[in-house]
Amino acid sequence: MMDTPLVLTSFFKRAETYFKHKPIISRTSDTMIHRLTYADFAVRTKKLAAVLEGFGLQRGMKIGSFAWNHHRHLEAYFAVPCSGAVLHMVNIRLAPEHLIYIINHAKDEILLVDDDLLPIIEEIYTELKTVRAVIVMGDDVDVSQSTIPNIFVYEDLLKEARTDFEFPEDLDEKMPAGMCYTSATTGFPKGVVYTHRSLVLHALSLGLVETFGLQERDIVMPVVPMFHVNAWGLPFACVNFGATQVLPGPHFTPKILLDLIESERVTLSAGVPTIWLGMMQELEKSEVPRDIASLTRLVSGGSSSPKGLIKAFEQKYGVNFLVGYGMTETSPIVSVSNYSSEMDEWDYEDKLEARSTQGMTVSLIETRIINENGEVPWDGKTMGELMIRGPWVADEYYEDERTADAFRDGWLYTGDIAVRTPQGYIKITDRTKDLIKSGGEWISSVDLENALMTHDAVFEAAVIAVPHPKWQERPLACVVTHEKPADEAALKAQLLAYLEQDFAKWWLPDDVLFLDEIPKTSVGKFLKAKLRDEINEYI
Amino acid sequence: MMDTPLVLTSFFKRAETYFKHKPIISRTSDTMIHRLTYADFAVRTKKLAAVLEGFGLQRGMKIGSFAWNHHRHLEAYFAVPCSGAVLHMVNIRLAPEHLIYIINHAKDEILLVDDDLLPIIEEIYTELKTVRAVIVMGDDVDVSQSTIPNIFVYEDLLKEARTDFEFPEDLDEKMPAGMCYTSATTGFPKGVVYTHRSLVLHALSLGLVETFGLQERDIVMPVVPMFHVNAWGLPFACVNFGATQVLPGPHFTPKILLDLIESERVTLSAGVPTIWLGMMQELEKSEVPRDIASLTRLVSGGSSSPKGLIKAFEQKYGVNFLVGYGMTETSPIVSVSNYSSEMDEWDYEDKLEARSTQGMTVSLIETRIINENGEVPWDGKTMGELMIRGPWVADEYYEDERTADAFRDGWLYTGDIAVRTPQGYIKITDRTKDLIKSGGEWISSVDLENALMTHDAVFEAAVIAVPHPKWQERPLACVVTHEKPADEAALKAQLLAYLEQDFAKWWLPDDVLFLDEIPKTSVGKFLKAKLRDEINEYI
Repeated sequence: MMDTPLVLTSFFKRAETYFKHKPIISRTSDTMIHRLTYADFAVRTKKLAAVLEGFGLQRGMKIGSFAWNHHRHLEAYFAVPCSGAVLHMVNIRLAPEHLIYIINHAKDEILLVDDDLLPIIEEIYTELKTVRAVIVMGDDVDVSQSTIPNIFVYEDLLKEARTDFEFPEDLDEKMPAGMCYTSATTGFPKGVVYTHRSLVLHALSLGLVETFGLQERDIVMPVVPMFHVNAWGLPFACVNFGATQVLPGPHFTPKILLDLIESERVTLSAGVPTIWLGMMQELEKSEVPRDIASLTRLVSGGSSSPKGLIKAFEQKYGVNFLVGYGMTETSPIVSVSNYSSEMDEWDYEDKLEARSTQGMTVSLIETRIINENGEVPWDGKTMGELMIRGPWVADEYYEDERTADAFRDGWLYTGDIAVRTPQGYIKITDRTKDLIKSGGEWISSVDLENALMTHDAVFEAAVIAVPHPKWQERPLACVVTHEKPADEAALKAQLLAYLEQDFAKWWLPDDVLFLDEIPKTSVGKFLKAKLRDEINEYI
Repeated sequence: MMDTPLVLTSFFKRAETYFKHKPIISRTSDTMIHRLTYADFAVRTKKLAAVLEGFGLQRGMKIGSFAWNHHRHLEAYFAVPCSGAVLHMVNIRLAPEHLIYIINHAKDEILLVDDDLLPIIEEIYTELKTVRAVIVMGDDVDVSQSTIPNIFVYEDLLKEARTDFEFPEDLDEKMPAGMCYTSATTGFPKGVVYTHRSLVLHALSLGLVETFGLQERDIVMPVVPMFHVNAWGLPFACVNFGATQVLPGPHFTPKILLDLIESERVTLSAGVPTIWLGMMQELEKSEVPRDIASLTRLVSGGSSSPKGLIKAFEQKYGVNFLVGYGMTETSPIVSVSNYSSEMDEWDYEDKLEARSTQGMTVSLIETRIINENGEVPWDGKTMGELMIRGPWVADEYYEDERTADAFRDGWLYTGDIAVRTPQGYIKITDRTKDLIKSGGEWISSVDLENALMTHDAVFEAAVIAVPHPKWQERPLACVVTHEKPADEAALKAQLLAYLEQDFAKWWLPDDVLFLDEIPKTSVGKFLKAKLRDEINEYI
C-alpha cells in the first residue's frame, strides 16, 4: 500500500479542490460578519503561509495564536501546520503569569493576536523570551500606539503576500502540528502536542455516524473556543468534509448565538453546558419565538450536562443533545452519548439517562475503568478510574516532569472517576480529587449535582467535600438559583427532600449554601478547588 | 501522541467488548441459517487462531480462503490477520490454471475451503506447491473420501481448540494482513497486498456519512463476495461498528436475497449491478408484494449502474441507490455518488444523473483525471485517464513485473477513462482499451451502454469497437433483451432512434447484435475482450 501520510494538507487540498463554493461565516465584532468561501480561505491561508515564511518560519517552529473563533484563526489553523510548523493555541483566559509561562515554555516565536486582546499581550510582552514578532488580527487595526516593537498588521501583510505559495508535500504524519496547554490543579499549565496523524484521525472520526456524523451539508457553529483543544477538532473536520462554518467571534452572548443559528440555519453546534444553559434561558425568555428548527444536534462536553437541560432541548425543540467526553490530552473526543439500537424501544426517561452519560467509546479509542479489583463490572454503580489509550491520546506532557503522574504502562490515567453502564457507556461520577469519602464509602459529587440541577429552582449546583470529625468527609451543596430564594431554609429543605427520592440518606449533603455564582475554570468547568477554599473561609 | 497502531485487532476487540449481543446471521446452505452473536464470533475466531497456531502459523505466512460469504469466512477474516499472518482471499470463480498460479504465487500454506468447493481444489491439488494442509468448512463435513492427504474438518478442529488464546498486541500497522488477485487483460492475475493500516482506514471510512454511513444500527448484507476485494471492506467495518451482518452464503438467488432482506430487516446491501438487476426483476414478477421497507441504501459498484435501475429502486421502493467506484488495487472504495447539498434543489432527473456517476472522491483519497493537456476541465465531457493515490491504494502488484505499468510517480494509473462533472464527481466513460476511436475522436462505450440499458426492452448492453477501413474503429452494440424480440430489425431501428435523442450521429453504433448473454468476468464485469473475440468470429 502507498505510504500516504495522514497530514492536514490533505484536508486543506480537499476543501480547495471540492468545496470552493462553500461558505465560511465569520463574526469578528458586533458590527461585522465576514462571508468568505473556501476558495477565499484557501487563497488567504496560502498567503498567510507565505507571510510566515518571510518571517523565517521553520519546520517545528512554534507559532502562538491568541484569538477568538473567526476566519483568520482558521487560516492560522492550516497555514502553520501545513507549513510544517506548530500552532500553539494559547488560552486567552489564563492568568498573566500562566500566559507568560506557557508562551515561554512552548518557545513561541511569532504571536497571532486579536486586536481586542492585544492589551493582554502588551502587558506581559517584556516577559516573553522567545517571541520576536506579533501579528495583529482584526478588521481595522492600528498598531501605531502599541508598546510592542516588532508588531505587524495581519491584513496588511496578507495584502502584500505572494500568491504562488504551495504547501510542501513531504510532511511526516508524526510531525507536531499543534499544541494546547491544560490547567493543572497546582502549578503551571501542562502542554500537549498534537501531531498531523492524531489531528487527522480525530477529525476524520467526527464524520462517523457513531460520533457527530459531520458532513458536507452541515452548517457548523463551534462555540467551543478555538483556543481550547482545537475547538474539539471541528475546524479541521469542517474543512475536510466541506461543511459550512459559522464562527461566532468575540464576546458572544446567548442572544448572538441564537441570532446566528436563525440567520445561518446552523445544523450542529458544540460547547460546554454553561453555553446551553444560557441559550435555554434566552430561548425561554424570548418574546418572539425563536426558530431553531435547522438545528439537528448540539454537542455538549467539558463538564456534566444536567438532564433537565438535555430534556428541554430534545423534547421542546427537537434537537438531539449529544454529550461527549474528552480532555486536552485526548484531542479531545473519547466518547459520545449516541443512542444504540437496543435503546430504540426504551422510554424517554431511560434514554435520557443514557443520553446524559459520557456515552460510548468511539472507534480506535480504548477505555478502561479500573479499581483495586481490576476492571469494574458494567453495573452503572461500581466506580473506578478512567484510563484511555488510542492514536489521538497524548503520551506525555511537553517537556514536563508531571508526565509520569498521568502516563503509565501505555495508558493515560485521567484522574476521572467513572462507572460503566450495562450498555458499556461511560458515566463520569467525579474527579479523583473531588470524590467524597464518607465513612469509608465513596459519594459521587457529580451525581448529586446533576440531580440538584434537575430541580426547577436551581441554575447550577456544585457539591464538595468538607472535613468531618467522624465521617472523615461529608458533602456540602453549593447552589445558584434562577431567582433569589424568598425563603432559603424552606428551599434547602425542599432540595434535600428532592434528593432523598433518589439517594441513600448518607449521600445527602449536610448543608446547602446559596451562592451568587460558582467559580469556573477558563474553559467553564467548576473550579472546585477554589470553591473549597472559599467555603473554608466561610466556615 | 501515543504510537497506537491501526490494526484489525482493535476492531476485533471493539466487537468483543461492546457488541457481544449483536447478531451475525449466516446462511450456509439452502436449509441452514446459523445465528451467532459477536460473543460467539469472538470465541470461535480465537479458537481458529489457536488451531492455526497449532499448524505452525507464523507472521507473514499466507493462508488461503476459498469460500462464500458466511460466518466461518468471517472468522478467518480476523483470526488470520490478527495473528500477524495474511489471508489470501482466493476468487472461487477463476479458471483452474489461474487458481494454481495464484495459490502458488502467493505461497499459501494452508487453505480454508468450503465443502461444496472442495472438488475444485481436489482437481488441482497436486499442482499446488506450497499448500501443506486443507481445512474444510461446512456444517456436516465428511472428508474420508477426499484425495487430499492432509485434510481436516474446520468444526472438528474448533471443538478441540484451546480457549485461552489471545491475539498478540505488538502488530505493526504496516504489516500485510490480506491479499487478493485481480484479473489481468492478458496473462495471470495480479496480486494486491493489503496492510492492517490500509484495511483499518478503509473500513473506518465506510462509517463516514459521506461514504456509506455504516453504523451500529445497520443490518448489513454484503452480496459482494468475501473473495472479492475484502467484500468491499464491509466485514471489517461491520465488526468495528457493531452492525448486524447477514451473510448470504453459497448459490444465492434474487429470491433468496429478498427473503433475507425481508426476514432480517436488512438496511444496507452491496453488490454489482447484475445483482440489483436480478433483484428488480424478482421484485417486479413477485405475486405477493415484497416488503423491502427496511432497506435504506443499496451500494452498487464493479461496473456502471443503469439509470433505469437506480430510478426504479429510488422512486418505486424508496431505497437510496449509491454508486461506488473502486478497484482491487484501491481496497476498493475511491468514490461514492452521495448527493451534495447543492443538489437538494435539483429535479430528480438531474439528481439521477449525479447518482449514476461514480461520485465524489472520499476523504484521504486523491483522484486526478489527466489527458495530454493535463487535468481535464470539470465539464462532464473532456475525457482523461483516472489516477488515484491514498493510504488504501496499492503501490505495487505482489512480486510482479507488471507493477511498472500501473504504478508511476506515486500514483495508480487505473486504465479507466473518466470525465469530471461540474460538481467534481467522477464519471467513468470507459476502459482505456475499450474506448472507441472513430475518425480521431473518442466515443464512450459506457455512455452508449447506459443509454441502451434505460430502454424498456433491454436487459443488458455492451458496446465494443470493431475495425473500420475509413474511421479506424466504429461502435457495435451487443444487446440482451428481456424477451426474445419478435422483429429484430424493428427493435434495432427503435434502439438506434432511441439513442439518437441523446447522442451525435457519429456516436451511433453501426449495428446492433442481439445475444443471449454477454460474457462476464468472475466478478460480474463485462468481458469485452472475450466479446470482441466472439464477435470477430461472427463477423
